[in-house]
Amino acid sequence: MSAGPVIVVTSGEPAGIGPDICLTIAEREWPCRLAVLGDPNVITERAKLVQSAVQIAVLGDEDPSAHRAGVLQILPIRAPAPVIPGQLDRRNAGYVLDMLRTAAQGCLDGRFAAMVTAPVQKSVIAQAGVPFSGHTEFLADFTATPRPVMLLVADRLRVALATTHLPLAAVPDAIRTDDLVAILVILAEGLRDRFHIARPKIVVLGLNPHAGESGHIGREDIDVIEPAIRAARERGIDAVGPIPADTAFTPHRLADADAVLAMYHDQGLPVLKYVGFGRGVNVTLGLPIVRTSVDHGTALSLAGRGTADAGSLAAAIDLAIRCVVSA
Amino acid sequence: MSAGPVIVVTSGEPAGIGPDICLTIAEREWPCRLAVLGDPNVITERAKLVQSAVQIAVLGDEDPSAHRAGVLQILPIRAPAPVIPGQLDRRNAGYVLDMLRTAAQGCLDGRFAAMVTAPVQKSVIAQAGVPFSGHTEFLADFTATPRPVMLLVADRLRVALATTHLPLAAVPDAIRTDDLVAILVILAEGLRDRFHIARPKIVVLGLNPHAGESGHIGREDIDVIEPAIRAARERGIDAVGPIPADTAFTPHRLADADAVLAMYHDQGLPVLKYVGFGRGVNVTLGLPIVRTSVDHGTALSLAGRGTADAGSLAAAIDLAIRCVVSA
Repeated sequence: MSAGPVIVVTSGEPAGIGPDICLTIAEREWPCRLAVLGDPNVITERAKLVQSAVQIAVLGDEDPSAHRAGVLQILPIRAPAPVIPGQLDRRNAGYVLDMLRTAAQGCLDGRFAAMVTAPVQKSVIAQAGVPFSGHTEFLADFTATPRPVMLLVADRLRVALATTHLPLAAVPDAIRTDDLVAILVILAEGLRDRFHIARPKIVVLGLNPHAGESGHIGREDIDVIEPAIRAARERGIDAVGPIPADTAFTPHRLADADAVLAMYHDQGLPVLKYVGFGRGVNVTLGLPIVRTSVDHGTALSLAGRGTADAGSLAAAIDLAIRCVVSA
Repeated sequence: MSAGPVIVVTSGEPAGIGPDICLTIAEREWPCRLAVLGDPNVITERAKLVQSAVQIAVLGDEDPSAHRAGVLQILPIRAPAPVIPGQLDRRNAGYVLDMLRTAAQGCLDGRFAAMVTAPVQKSVIAQAGVPFSGHTEFLADFTATPRPVMLLVADRLRVALATTHLPLAAVPDAIRTDDLVAILVILAEGLRDRFHIARPKIVVLGLNPHAGESGHIGREDIDVIEPAIRAARERGIDAVGPIPADTAFTPHRLADADAVLAMYHDQGLPVLKYVGFGRGVNVTLGLPIVRTSVDHGTALSLAGRGTADAGSLAAAIDLAIRCVVSA
């Protein structure tokens, strides 16, 4: 019997709740070989602070073994500066990035089947002088991926974003037919390859209220989005729309949709976060590796207190396993 | 014992499901004097089509009496053209508008305590040569209200909109500090006067993703929205924000919020429609009269078939009654 795929978890910003939630997820069974990247001292100290009974096993050159409940296998990386929960230290920014590089390279090399990321703090990485706009962009750059697609998952609801962290005023010009077609191709492939859906159905939202109401409320739905949907359908992708955002997220509409493609961040994520509170997962599609992530931040004020919710990390690990195991 | 407030319902576009759902809501008890504006012949014919056992009582000059389950009291207005379910006829556009004027004037005169609107079809009113961008704007104009505020209600979730049916590209410029302050004043007054909340707490969403992330994703949250919130607070309004839209709609955030002010249509309504599917209510605040509405359209294809869902109309009547009866 196989010990399961190797799933590597980056423990993220050490002053945040990353170490805490890595300890929590080690308490339960997992059908995989689970390894956490991080500083064993940081995680051991955090275990004392949160009174965790999880046993720390530091790996050397050997592969991780099958996960056992109560044991956390650590792939060690050293944090150069002392870690105090809640207190950011730019000297540890490189440590955070090293974890990402190690995890991603290990996935590219086939050493790991998938990587799962705990939260990082963008601001402290930027203060350390490293341009960093997010995990997604960093991993796209590291793997030379031209177009990563952000997909948020909560239970059966999956929402992909055509644009991510843009000012609202920049969104309309950023929505282009060619880009949308490329995103639909990546999304359809991701749903097929990662989510094992043979012929995924994608609901494409309109850009404007009521999807423009036949052009009365903006032209982009007709001029930009409709041609993209037609082009995607010509490539065999089962995309429908543009559908008004406020009717797309109703039960009968969602019942036979495998994913919703929202045009921008705040059009798609509020419902996702409402539905998936505490168990949302962020998946990057279009990468040559499997990467899932928590959907929350570092929660600095909760670090070391024993109250951080590991639900999203658990859901991210669970989804990573399902992505790499055939249906 | 009082027979309750007089609530008038406009039956809306006659070719749509308005007549159908007016019949449905008459089947149950209501703690009010309920009167439906419409053509008695249209509604009688619709009753036959949907095999409704509801009895039609046409009112003359007398006030409606207390509602009894199974009896629909009609304030008659004549539709000039024959009505065929599902087939729009511009000759009946004036009839639809007459209902609105009669209801609104009756509310202004104190004859009715509140008006509730079934859906109309904007396109057929426009074809008839009458500029009409929606109930809200029509009633604002009729009552000389400079700034109506659209509030959507589903159970305990209340979402107001700072802008409504604008192309997305026009939204950022339409968000202005003075307007937001005025909207917050109307919203707070509406929550106090209509919803009987002594000191309402209002969560104000940011315009940009993550509420701009300290200015990294757009400046409007800092330059436009924050000053509006400060000004509103100086006027004694308990407004907080700007809060990122994807964290505002989580259970602990919503737990002590009486309303959410979204900056635009598709930021606020998808969650509302998800939560309130089939029982959402649209309330216009800022008018000198109480007006609630269904949150759906005319559903022409369902008219006369007996399958239309009257849940939203029932919720709109229920809310209208609660708005006019003291807490």
